[in-house]
Amino acid sequence: MSKIRVAISGYGNLGKGVESAIKQNSDMELCAVISRRKDLKINTEGVKVVPFDEVLSLKGQVDVVIICGGSATDLPEMTPFLAKHFSVVDSFDNHANIPLHREKVDKSAKEGGNVAVISVGWDPGLFSVSRLYAEAALPEGKSYTFWGKGVSQGHSDAIRRIDGVLTAKQYTVPREEAVGSVRRGEMPELTTRDKHLRQCFVVPKDDADLDKIRETIVNMPNYFADYITTVEFISMEEFEANHSGIPHGGSVIRTGTTGAGNKSNVEFSLKLDSNPEFTGSVLVSFARAAYRMSADGVTGCKTIFDIPPALLSEKTPEELYATML
Amino acid sequence: MSKIRVAISGYGNLGKGVESAIKQNSDMELCAVISRRKDLKINTEGVKVVPFDEVLSLKGQVDVVIICGGSATDLPEMTPFLAKHFSVVDSFDNHANIPLHREKVDKSAKEGGNVAVISVGWDPGLFSVSRLYAEAALPEGKSYTFWGKGVSQGHSDAIRRIDGVLTAKQYTVPREEAVGSVRRGEMPELTTRDKHLRQCFVVPKDDADLDKIRETIVNMPNYFADYITTVEFISMEEFEANHSGIPHGGSVIRTGTTGAGNKSNVEFSLKLDSNPEFTGSVLVSFARAAYRMSADGVTGCKTIFDIPPALLSEKTPEELYATML
Repeated sequence: MSKIRVAISGYGNLGKGVESAIKQNSDMELCAVISRRKDLKINTEGVKVVPFDEVLSLKGQVDVVIICGGSATDLPEMTPFLAKHFSVVDSFDNHANIPLHREKVDKSAKEGGNVAVISVGWDPGLFSVSRLYAEAALPEGKSYTFWGKGVSQGHSDAIRRIDGVLTAKQYTVPREEAVGSVRRGEMPELTTRDKHLRQCFVVPKDDADLDKIRETIVNMPNYFADYITTVEFISMEEFEANHSGIPHGGSVIRTGTTGAGNKSNVEFSLKLDSNPEFTGSVLVSFARAAYRMSADGVTGCKTIFDIPPALLSEKTPEELYATML
Repeated sequence: MSKIRVAISGYGNLGKGVESAIKQNSDMELCAVISRRKDLKINTEGVKVVPFDEVLSLKGQVDVVIICGGSATDLPEMTPFLAKHFSVVDSFDNHANIPLHREKVDKSAKEGGNVAVISVGWDPGLFSVSRLYAEAALPEGKSYTFWGKGVSQGHSDAIRRIDGVLTAKQYTVPREEAVGSVRRGEMPELTTRDKHLRQCFVVPKDDADLDKIRETIVNMPNYFADYITTVEFISMEEFEANHSGIPHGGSVIRTGTTGAGNKSNVEFSLKLDSNPEFTGSVLVSFARAAYRMSADGVTGCKTIFDIPPALLSEKTPEELYATML
């Protein structure tokens, strides 16, 4: 059988995660990396690098393009554009803008006769579908999402922009009291502050004013002001030894009642040493679904909610019924 | 909008769980209970009870029949029979026989132009789909299922059949060492004995030979011989005070590696005060999917693997994209 030919657009951490994941799926092959960077060297030998402005030269050579860009500026432009010419998968994660993104992508995917799967990964993605299954099973209840312990790139970036900071990493940490209360089915009302702590590890420049850095962090609106935030100054050696990874994870918990008040608790949780590698791996499984739907004549924009789970698996439906149901 | 008209076939614990769940879903109504028992009284006022041999009189009055019977003898006959005349949902849970059951049900559902959803609940059901998503996301890894702490009806029944036993309850308990090792990503090889303990609470008759009961239990092949089994004799008062519920739950855990060996851990877990009520609630959400697929012209047998999750929710796809993705 011929393999599903996948191209990666964008070769940052997520693109590299997709590249690794393709190697773990025997029915797929990486056929190109699309990049704006000239002279890009990639980890897979024998695979061509195509400049973004020549991407249309790949038409007919690629089954699915996995678009690994940022949700702020890249994906709102790239996904609608690429969906006109290829079946695509993206990880658009700006929750508030998903409906608008979906509409734009749906229009161009239909124009091009392609399938576009958007907002795939773990949140949105596996977390979203867990919320859906849990809410369908427990209509009377309350859902909670906790993130971490894990690295927030956005918050780490915000610290790195402060005067006197060489580098920094921010971990989002769910508060145990809150998680415990939810798991016990107490259905608490939780504020932003109740749910998560923010731990910051900062490498300062030699002459930096540490108190000023600390004050700037803990009072930063939106990012830190609403949280209990801890700031620890460390050396570059310690940073490199203990804070070089990109772990993440979290939990979706729904508690509800059935019958005359019996409690039920549904929990989905992830613990990931590498957030971009796992997210890339999820994207690859949805590339398989996009390929199969497209082969089946489907066109338009799909989300994890619209896709029969069997389409994600390398196994046939018959194998799934026999071994996994 | 008119409501989805649901009938329940079989009015044991599961049927009553379905009855409760229908009341929690505003787009559904219970329109009949089908039973082999004469003079059955049900909890919902104004709903008719129809003898099983007059079930065809319900044709045209019911959108979906939820079949609440046992997998050993009831469902292998009832589901193929009813699927000829109605769209149906069942909770067939004899894993090894699912492919055969699916084939028979598929044939009759197609003959009747109906949709039949089989093997719905939590295992098979939500556990199965969690295994599928996790394996698709982590092709290199290992999946584990732990059940409990919860009541095994089959094991409790087996104890109750022993001479000298008034009543009994058996709890399946996952072994913490095993769960811990799996969560730490150690990918252990686990035997049946490693994974679960069996706790038995037995109310003996006055003149019973306790040692003999204990020996009979712990040496019972298939049920207990392969496990560490504890037997505690208690009074009927204690039994009724502390062991009258039907709690259950469990976890599906997959651990795997991404990239150059980073670990990922995906876990889905349930903790249920009432197993039949929660299972009934899951069945009801799949009745909605069966109704929608049937309205859309779909026929044949479907499983949780084949159904786009959006079909389970009372919300429209647009509401789901905006609020839950």
